[in-house]
This record gives sequence, structure tokens and C-alpha cells, in this order.
Amino acid sequence: MAFVIPQGFSAAGVHAGIKRNPTRQDVALVVSNRPAAAAGVYTKNLVYAAPVAFDRRLTPGDGFRAVVINSGNANACTGDRGLSDAAEMARLAASTCGAEPKQALVLSTGIIGEFMPMEKIAAGIKACAKDLAPEEAGFIAAARGMMTTDTVHKLHSATVTVGQRGFHIAGMCKGAAMIAPNMGTMLGLVLTDAPVAARDLQRMLNEVVDDTFNCISVDGHMSTNDTVLLLANGAAGGEKLSGDGLVQIQNALHEVCAELARSIPADGEGATHLVCIDVKGCATAGAARQIAKSVADSPLVKTAIHGADPNWGRIVSAAGYAGVPFNPSGVNLDVNGFILYKDGAPAAFSAEQVSSSIKTHRETSIVLSFREGNASARFWTADLTAEYVRLNADYHT
Amino acid sequence: MAFVIPQGFSAAGVHAGIKRNPTRQDVALVVSNRPAAAAGVYTKNLVYAAPVAFDRRLTPGDGFRAVVINSGNANACTGDRGLSDAAEMARLAASTCGAEPKQALVLSTGIIGEFMPMEKIAAGIKACAKDLAPEEAGFIAAARGMMTTDTVHKLHSATVTVGQRGFHIAGMCKGAAMIAPNMGTMLGLVLTDAPVAARDLQRMLNEVVDDTFNCISVDGHMSTNDTVLLLANGAAGGEKLSGDGLVQIQNALHEVCAELARSIPADGEGATHLVCIDVKGCATAGAARQIAKSVADSPLVKTAIHGADPNWGRIVSAAGYAGVPFNPSGVNLDVNGFILYKDGAPAAFSAEQVSSSIKTHRETSIVLSFREGNASARFWTADLTAEYVRLNADYHT
Repeated sequence: MAFVIPQGFSAAGVHAGIKRNPTRQDVALVVSNRPAAAAGVYTKNLVYAAPVAFDRRLTPGDGFRAVVINSGNANACTGDRGLSDAAEMARLAASTCGAEPKQALVLSTGIIGEFMPMEKIAAGIKACAKDLAPEEAGFIAAARGMMTTDTVHKLHSATVTVGQRGFHIAGMCKGAAMIAPNMGTMLGLVLTDAPVAARDLQRMLNEVVDDTFNCISVDGHMSTNDTVLLLANGAAGGEKLSGDGLVQIQNALHEVCAELARSIPADGEGATHLVCIDVKGCATAGAARQIAKSVADSPLVKTAIHGADPNWGRIVSAAGYAGVPFNPSGVNLDVNGFILYKDGAPAAFSAEQVSSSIKTHRETSIVLSFREGNASARFWTADLTAEYVRLNADYHT
Repeated sequence: MAFVIPQGFSAAGVHAGIKRNPTRQDVALVVSNRPAAAAGVYTKNLVYAAPVAFDRRLTPGDGFRAVVINSGNANACTGDRGLSDAAEMARLAASTCGAEPKQALVLSTGIIGEFMPMEKIAAGIKACAKDLAPEEAGFIAAARGMMTTDTVHKLHSATVTVGQRGFHIAGMCKGAAMIAPNMGTMLGLVLTDAPVAARDLQRMLNEVVDDTFNCISVDGHMSTNDTVLLLANGAAGGEKLSGDGLVQIQNALHEVCAELARSIPADGEGATHLVCIDVKGCATAGAARQIAKSVADSPLVKTAIHGADPNWGRIVSAAGYAGVPFNPSGVNLDVNGFILYKDGAPAAFSAEQVSSSIKTHRETSIVLSFREGNASARFWTADLTAEYVRLNADYHT
């Protein structure tokens, strides 16, 4: 599907010398030609980075004109100097469009515990300002500017019609795990030209992130920098949306965020399989998500999928320690459509057939169902490979 | 230190044909020549094995004469037939010393979801009964009879004098992770000739296991079969212990269990480092343990240690998502005695020196301290290697 750009937004990304490889963008800028409302969700880690502290104070809010992004340095565990560096980045980004420092937001990812190379950052922001373009090439360059160990840039967009009015939503994100010596992180930036009030934007983002970016994992290690920002500049025109209009926007936002979220474990470090875990028949969506996460984070489940081994005991026992009560005799398990476990007892199946199905598909489907209620959750993860270990053990600081 | 055997206990282990390799014991028997009090702690997994269900109903209690152990088959997810097989194993074990079925306990570990080969088990128990010996060789054979992917058998003992009376405590355990197609598990059996009432035994075991076997991890995947049993037969003579005597026994029990627990991650699948995580200065011991477990279970911390990479950001950020509140500016971190992080800020250190220290020691020490209180915890884990992935991905069902 073609990538559509919400009206009024332009973007650029350049190589400013933070990353060693000169072909890799490491500073990016996204500008709205009019003030935008913004919402944000952030890492729950107590040890959080300076840009997280900076953005969290300002969102939800109105009047935003710019988002500055850098990769190669997370500006995390950098104390007061890190905070003033983040503020300076916002000031520089805002100044490119004649705005105030508090009208810009900051996203950083990369190595932890090192101070920002502010001269390079300043030069990079200046270079971005010259390149800004409301075109796909600019958004690709910006999406590449947030990449660390990602092997592909991650962009997705959607169009939604509310009554007679057409709106666009476009997002970018990064994330593949964390790589030594860098602490890579999940970053997301979603833009829309729909007119939405900041508080509606924030509620919408909270709900959508819970079902999308909060339903993925690669290695279960929560970073210091995780951030998703959502900007709405209203450039498509019309009054602020409410009621059904907001619901339609939220549905489109869900589509964009789900696609972006899925792209992260799909690009998981060293991964050979993207794993989709559907948990059904739970009392609450939270319970379903907790079981799904327990299965997703088990290194034994992840290695079994890597080895194309239909080892259902690992999946069922990971559900058993999720901390969610359930009746074991109501448990059913399908892998790639094959029934492996039925009503709490082993089912007859051909191990060769299931193994061959896992081996020949890049995506593995796990469906775990219970008899506790009607709530469900979908969670995405990656398998665990020797390559993941090598990537994270063998590249030293 | 020499291995001492509590009075009145004898043990044996034989190859009964459950494991393919004829040099490996797979059925073991431990018998007390008089009735013993017994306590047990079990997996909290909702999906638990038949022997767990069997033992849990009987402990704490009195009158036990035998414990039968097998490896190679976990008797987990085997429904009603599994339950009757476990009961039959108890009956066979008890009959070797003229006791009733409810005077025996059962420990199983190995493949999940397959029925027990009861003919082999019965023959194995019979062979064990002939071999029973109150000698170290018998206990080594029994400890080998509970091994799955363990590379060494795990035995430890202690002697304690209460007033003029000398008592002995001896324990065995197994565990290295889980290996495809088997679901290995943690099993422990501790014996003493001290006279202790069943309810004191249970309280003591609960407290000790919390600080020892519950403070280790290899891969964070809780099994269906985890069990630690403690038997006290009073063969050393005298009245039931109380007060200070119980405290002394509990201290010795702690020593034995701590040493056994540590031996499990030390033998972790594919591990090249045993990692000791000390967390200090927390409000409660539970908080300290929760932080230690969060650090221990992070694949990024585990791979960094495997790569001898002093990547302190991974350790500090894993503490940050443990779910325990703390002031980030009060955090200090030492690795192998080197200060890497002080008062919430990076410390100056030589990365080469720390890396070389990690590389040249089999054991890595991580000390994380906070300024929230005086409680602490010690936790043991193993590093994560490509060999772990190979062991768990490449050996298929």
C-alpha cells in the first residue's frame, strides 16, 4: 500500500556523525507547518532517559511544531547535563521554524551513559532543516534516522474518511532489541492531519498503545527510552472531531500502530521467526495479555520455535506460571493450525508435519484458548537464536 | 568437605531403561529405617505434574519411610493415568520396606506428556531395594538417578551440634534448565537424623527455600515438577527439638540448601559463568529479591556477562523495570569489585580491566545497592550462551 503523508508535515534525516557508518542517518527532524496537539506514552522504567523526562512534562499539550530525533546516543543515565542537552535539542529544532523551545519534542536512542555530541547534533538539525520535504523520501530518511540495529526502516500509514472529510495517519518506529554497547529502544512517532484535541489524542494513544506497542517483545528487557508520540495538526481542516469521528480515527490509528508494532519483532535481532500469540477465552483482556507475555518471554518457547520443535509442554507450562488463575482442563493449544493440546490433555498429531510447517513459514501462529470468559489478546514476539546471543555478547563496549 | 549421611537413611540408584544411555541411572530409592516427618515445597505452576499432586496431599506429615525418584519422564500433563501411576510408584517403593503406600513420596523429572513406563519403573525399584546402602556410593547413585541435562551430580551435607547432641543434614538436587524434548525441573531431597516435628519442618523448609532454591534461575521458565522434600527421621536420638535447637538446625539446613541451590545455575545449560547478584539497601527482602530476579532474568545482562562486557546500563535498567520503587540517584553498582555506577551516575573505570576480570573468572559478582532501607537478597543465575540456544533448539522431539 502506498505511503500517504498527512497534510502540513514534512520530514528529513541526515548523517551527522554520531554513527560511524557515513551512509547511516542519525539525526532527523519532523516539522508541522501549523501548531499540533501532541500526546505521548513513555517507558515505565524508573531509570528513564533525559528526552523521556523532557517530553513527559509537555504532553499531552498543544502548539507543537517540531520533533527532533537522534540515534547512536540514548542520552540516558546522563544526569543534569543530559537534561540540558535534551532541552537544547528542542530549542535548536524549534528555532528552525521560528518556534519556542517548548514547541518541540525530543526522541533519542542508542548508547547509554554517554553525553550527547551537541556540536554534531546542532549541525545535523541545521542540515535537516534545509532538506525538509513533505514527501515520502523525507519520511524514509527520518525513519532511518531513528534506526539502531534495525535492518529495515519502519513506516506505515492509513487513510480514514469521516463523513465527507478525509484524514491521513502516518507513523514511523524503530526497535530490534538492544545491542552492545548500545541500549537500543522502541521509539514511535505517529502524525495525523485530523483535528483532534490534545486530551482526546492522549486517551486514544493510551488505549491503542496498550493493544499494540505494549503487546510486543523481543527479549523482555524494558528500555530507558521507550516513547511513542502522536501529533495531530488539523491541517486537513474542519472542526475538532468528536464522537463517531474520534472512533474512526482511533480505529485507523490502531491499524497503523499494530502494523508498526508487528514490524519490530519481525525485525528482532537474530530472529528467524515472527511469532503471533493469540490468547482467547480469558476473564479479562489484561489476563489474556499476561498469559501471552509469559509465553512470549520464555526462552524455552522461543528456542523451540527456532528449532521448529512442536514442544507444547513449554507453551502450556509458560501459561501456567503467568500468575493468572485458570482451569488446566479447559486449555487448548493450536500451532500453525494444528491441534497439539485439547481440553487439558495431549492431542494426537504428527510432529513431522507441525515441525515442517514451522520450518517453512517465517511466521508462527500460537493460539491458546481457555474457558474463563470472552476476553482475548494478540501478542507478537521473535524467536531466540544463537545469532541473538552473538549480537549481544560478542560486540563489546 | 566429606559427605556425611544422616543416621538411619540408605539410598540406591539404578539404570532401569527410561534413559537410553545404559550408564545413566534413572530410578532411585531413599529409605529411612524408621518413620520420618516430611515437609515439601512445590512448583507454583498451575500446570503441575502427578507426583507434585501426590506429594502435596501428604506433606507436611509423619510416618514416611521411602522416597522414589525417576528421571527421563516427568509424569506431567498425563491426566488420571499419571495420578494412578504416581500412586503405584509410591506403593511399590513402600512395599520394599514393608510400609503402606501413603508412607512413600514420589519425585519425577524428564519428558512431559508421556505416560510412565511402569514395568521399567517397577523393575528399577526392585533393583534399588537390593542395592540400598547407608554409604556415599548409594547417595551418589541416587543423586545421579535424578539427573537430566545436569553434567554433575549435586550433593551437600552439614553437621550441627545442639547442646551435646550431634545431627546430620544431607541433600541432593538436580537441575540445569529444560532441554528439548524433556522438561527438566528442579528437584531436591534433604534428609536429617534430627528429631523435628512435621509442622516445624514445614515452616523451616518454607523459610529456607525462599532464600535458596527460590533465589536461583537459569532461564526464568518455571517448571511443572519443581519439588523440594525434607525428611527428618530422628535417628540421632533424643526428644523433638524446639527453640534454639530448631534455629541451629535451620541454619545448617540453610547452608545445605544454599550450596545445593548454587550448584544448579553453576551447571546451567551451556553456561560459561555463574553469576551472583547481591542486592542491598532495600526496604524489604522481597523488594531486594524482585530486583535481583529482574537483573538475573534479563537476556541482555546474561549475554553481556557471557561476552565479558561491563555493560552497566543493562544491569541498572533491568533494576529499573523490576516494579520496585527506588530513588535512581541512590543507585550504586559494583561488578567483580569494580565500581561502575555511583550515586546514579557513571563512574570512571577501565573497561579492559573489568572485561578481563569477567573473562578470567568462572564466577561473576554483581552488587547493586540502593538507599531505601537495610534489607538485602542474594540471587544466583547463569549467563546466556549460543550453546544454550543450540541445546534447546536443535534437539527435537
